[in-house]
Amino acid sequence: MNRISKIFQPMVIIPKNAVIKKQEVSSRSQRLMTELGLIRPATNGTFYLLPLVQRSVDKLVAIVDAHMKQIDAQKVTLPILTPGDLWKKSGRLTGTVNREIMTTIDRHENLQVLSPTNEESITSLMASLSPISYKQLPLRFYQIGTKFRDEMKPRFGLIRTKEFLMKDLYTFDGNDTNALDTYHEVCGIYERMLRNIGLGNFAKVQGDSGLMGGSLSHEYHLPATVGDDTLATCEKCGHSVNVEAIPEGKRESCTKCGEGGAIRLTEGIEVAHTFLLGDKYSNPLKATYLQEHGLTEPLAMGCFGVGITRLVAAAIEVLSTDTDIRWPRRLAPFTVCLIPPKSGSKEDKCGGSALAESLYSKVIELPGLHDDAILDDRNHLTIGKRLLLAKRMGYPFVIVIGSRVVEDPPTLELHLIESGQTMELSPNDIVTELRKHLGA
Amino acid sequence: MNRISKIFQPMVIIPKNAVIKKQEVSSRSQRLMTELGLIRPATNGTFYLLPLVQRSVDKLVAIVDAHMKQIDAQKVTLPILTPGDLWKKSGRLTGTVNREIMTTIDRHENLQVLSPTNEESITSLMASLSPISYKQLPLRFYQIGTKFRDEMKPRFGLIRTKEFLMKDLYTFDGNDTNALDTYHEVCGIYERMLRNIGLGNFAKVQGDSGLMGGSLSHEYHLPATVGDDTLATCEKCGHSVNVEAIPEGKRESCTKCGEGGAIRLTEGIEVAHTFLLGDKYSNPLKATYLQEHGLTEPLAMGCFGVGITRLVAAAIEVLSTDTDIRWPRRLAPFTVCLIPPKSGSKEDKCGGSALAESLYSKVIELPGLHDDAILDDRNHLTIGKRLLLAKRMGYPFVIVIGSRVVEDPPTLELHLIESGQTMELSPNDIVTELRKHLGA
Repeated sequence: MNRISKIFQPMVIIPKNAVIKKQEVSSRSQRLMTELGLIRPATNGTFYLLPLVQRSVDKLVAIVDAHMKQIDAQKVTLPILTPGDLWKKSGRLTGTVNREIMTTIDRHENLQVLSPTNEESITSLMASLSPISYKQLPLRFYQIGTKFRDEMKPRFGLIRTKEFLMKDLYTFDGNDTNALDTYHEVCGIYERMLRNIGLGNFAKVQGDSGLMGGSLSHEYHLPATVGDDTLATCEKCGHSVNVEAIPEGKRESCTKCGEGGAIRLTEGIEVAHTFLLGDKYSNPLKATYLQEHGLTEPLAMGCFGVGITRLVAAAIEVLSTDTDIRWPRRLAPFTVCLIPPKSGSKEDKCGGSALAESLYSKVIELPGLHDDAILDDRNHLTIGKRLLLAKRMGYPFVIVIGSRVVEDPPTLELHLIESGQTMELSPNDIVTELRKHLGA
Repeated sequence: MNRISKIFQPMVIIPKNAVIKKQEVSSRSQRLMTELGLIRPATNGTFYLLPLVQRSVDKLVAIVDAHMKQIDAQKVTLPILTPGDLWKKSGRLTGTVNREIMTTIDRHENLQVLSPTNEESITSLMASLSPISYKQLPLRFYQIGTKFRDEMKPRFGLIRTKEFLMKDLYTFDGNDTNALDTYHEVCGIYERMLRNIGLGNFAKVQGDSGLMGGSLSHEYHLPATVGDDTLATCEKCGHSVNVEAIPEGKRESCTKCGEGGAIRLTEGIEVAHTFLLGDKYSNPLKATYLQEHGLTEPLAMGCFGVGITRLVAAAIEVLSTDTDIRWPRRLAPFTVCLIPPKSGSKEDKCGGSALAESLYSKVIELPGLHDDAILDDRNHLTIGKRLLLAKRMGYPFVIVIGSRVVEDPPTLELHLIESGQTMELSPNDIVTELRKHLGA
């Protein structure tokens, strides 16, 4: 049984000590996640993920895995350390991009990059097997791993950090036409995935493929009041672009339909990015395949990222109120929270606490809820205080064993946190109602 | 449906190109894992984990998570980059240990360690919350993440690498007595976990706590013919030590019972290590708690590691033959492999291929086998060739739809790869037999 008393969740309203004082709490999600004990700052730009948000991250990883499986993408692990030589070959270890790339030199004096993204690495793997056969194509590999970026100014909590969890997918096709088909297929699964997570509105905008290279790029943004990006949407044709990606002077007219004067600007948090790369990496790194008629050809590539830790924080940023976290239901640390009576109370003595435990065991038998309910056993606190905390944490369903538990039959409260609705129901009806809401 | 044709598994007997030529294939597991397309070298000491072994790693992670839950350990993420200042405070950024620690300097000129282990980091987190209350103890945190060690000579494939996946657990108690109880409890779950994985024999030996500090330490080794450690076991009392951990002169007599002349030496691969740390880190980093009677006291700590990628390779090292991989059953990439007839064969035309697909759907309904069976749909290959490959890969159960499928009722072959036994059974009896072997 999951019990809140066993979960480490330091409740710190305002960071107190010197290490934390240096940090700037620069977004709603950072403040709420700190106050509710989900994260703690480690350095400027790195964070500890504490147990509750770790559960959310693990849930998101499982959702991403399931969607990657739908497009036959195979999960792998690419090393974090990649040879500097590869980055020189691709041309990415020179110029302005350099400043954000972290490096280390090993005891044999080899320069290693702490990968912010792994195009060089995966392309080098394919090159080491070149030429593979056209029969093996298409190939799609992804991983979910830690990435590094030496941000000048990390901010907004988990939204912009020096170290973050990212899903990166790389696709290999035999020609540009097939690569474009793959690109659209992946964009399709990205859109389905973002909808399935329940993020509410998101914007797909034409992106900047500058540093990554390639010919086509899109970004997926959650509209927010903080964010590093400003989106320009044409109210005539609906076309959106990240204004970072277009020349300053063109903001006044749509880059697609050419209409002027109807450009709406909104801020956004980028949670995913897609790139059609062509042979930008496969050509210099010599990743080729053998065509049916015997000639070798560079592989046509795409790369596709989802910021895992960023997406969790961005979801909190856009869904929460000033005081209460709200989650996409599938990312809440626990879906159901049960609050038994205060110990020693009339309700406790009348069997309310035992009822909470038996109801818990019924709730976790609902499909998908195994290990996904939690009992708030801090029974020295009043029910009112614990209900307030449960609402702040945003567990989607909160069951309160309150004053009407002494009635015959006992009546409990089911709080639907997303809608704000409260229902008074018998224990059995609570299970039925939950089943309905879960679509189970 | 999982199909082998969709799984990237480059079959490369001998590494061919220049990057790989530099590598030395120095262990059976490295050779088999390379030949069977489970890993590819990236640099000297880093590897790509390809899709099949990624599945094994993910299975091991799930097993470790389940065992950590049994001791109420909470999963977290600690940053990979930890401030050099913390390592100076703990005293670990000086002296000989330095050579294996990788570092990077960020754009603000801060030295960051690429953590090989995270005592400083987790202790600093606790210090940032100090003093916590005695009521919150014991606390147990773990993570499963990438670690770095700048090995002078990486070798044995995934057994000794510069970058590896490790489970690290940190425990916090109020005094040495409780910390010792915790230590024994964790050792107990480690032993149960290693048995549950099915690794066969393992040795628990007194370890060297030198670099980590602390007063008590044990290592868990798999006995192997390669390995960096030599274990000395007293044939009188059974006490084992890693000879690295005892002075040269003492190898001749047991450090526990004092008997001489009955010391047996074996090689071993260390897969887990436990340390009772006391206040070695909590004292300099000021991680304290508030006792019941109002005084603060340093937390009493333990740390406990399991090499995840190393354990997978070590298991292959000790269980495999020269030609065929053998897995602990729970770590095999797929538990069941089905081999349908060669396309165009008599068996194919008589419905053998359709039978394979319908049997597949029954197999994956067995408990625990959802998503854990694979169809070898390389139907241009003979059954004999594919059976050979399945045996080399070591799938624990191989079902062959062979020549007797044309009989009425059809008869199939069930190969129990672990025991070498073959049974000829009807499709229904195969499912029954599998269920029996799986204990399902």
